[in-house]
Amino acid sequence: MKLKKQERRDAIKKEIAKNPFITDFDLSTLFSVSIQTIRLDRTHLDIPELRTRIKSVARKNYESIRSIEGNEIIGDVINVEPDQYASSIINIDEDSVFTKNKIARGHVLFAQANSLCVALIHKPVVLTSESNVVFTKPVKLNETVRANAQTIEITNKFYIIKVESYVKDTVVFKGTFKMYYTSEDEQNG
Amino acid sequence: MKLKKQERRDAIKKEIAKNPFITDFDLSTLFSVSIQTIRLDRTHLDIPELRTRIKSVARKNYESIRSIEGNEIIGDVINVEPDQYASSIINIDEDSVFTKNKIARGHVLFAQANSLCVALIHKPVVLTSESNVVFTKPVKLNETVRANAQTIEITNKFYIIKVESYVKDTVVFKGTFKMYYTSEDEQNG
Repeated sequence: MKLKKQERRDAIKKEIAKNPFITDFDLSTLFSVSIQTIRLDRTHLDIPELRTRIKSVARKNYESIRSIEGNEIIGDVINVEPDQYASSIINIDEDSVFTKNKIARGHVLFAQANSLCVALIHKPVVLTSESNVVFTKPVKLNETVRANAQTIEITNKFYIIKVESYVKDTVVFKGTFKMYYTSEDEQNG
Repeated sequence: MKLKKQERRDAIKKEIAKNPFITDFDLSTLFSVSIQTIRLDRTHLDIPELRTRIKSVARKNYESIRSIEGNEIIGDVINVEPDQYASSIINIDEDSVFTKNKIARGHVLFAQANSLCVALIHKPVVLTSESNVVFTKPVKLNETVRANAQTIEITNKFYIIKVESYVKDTVVFKGTFKMYYTSEDEQNG
């Protein structure tokens, strides 16, 4: 849809309010304008770039996470409902890929999913007990991976959490994590 | 056993030749002398400290590894028989533990095991396909983890590799890794 400048700016503002993690590229496609135009519109609207928006949301989320320090989480937590679900985003940079083929290393996707499971659990002490993971599609340099974690079961010792990670709409990683936790009583007892 | 100085130095030399990864502490226990004495003995014998011995062995091993750059392997590979078995050692430093409880993070043990599986496979392209892992005992700051990987099965597309990781004689991690590989023919074809 092609809109007039002010209409487009209003629409961009609404779109980003609805989905703070939309890229400039996706906005440019949505409104049939160049990425440069989107950047100018954002500047005019005083909306920071995606990276800054993600960091800002992540920082707010860290306030409701108690099992792990925010800076120890691999990836940025973009939403979290303690004990229920959480999502994080990671950008696959040069440090995360094999030099030879520029494909993301397995342990990077594992680390993102695993630390999201720790972050999700609203307990003082959380440790990974077991994990079954499948790497369904290679992830390449500069791709962005979004991991969604969802609690399946909580027992008196463990959380069972399912994680699915995506590059755009493609599943690249699936995992089940059995997480051991200690509640406050044990901690203090 | 308490030996005279020269006897002890001869014995230390033999012991390190037999097991290059023995610690000064273990040598001091073995020969009923202080760690300081062992250090002096090593200096006299011109045998470098453990860390240097490990790095030196690892560097030699990298010559027989083709699937991954030596500096990309998490841990130091202390032995490798391509396509059959391999072992690596990692020291759990401050970067590898949770700030809160000083326990090693799951993805560190996973990364050591996973990159050992890649290193073991003598093929140009290797990717992790599936993995089932169990963290059997928490690993603490400053502990040394030795991972042993052993090939169980090779099919025309996958290697199945078992990994067991130890702190001294205690199993701390067990994993099965299904690794996808591409042979030269496909690579060139």
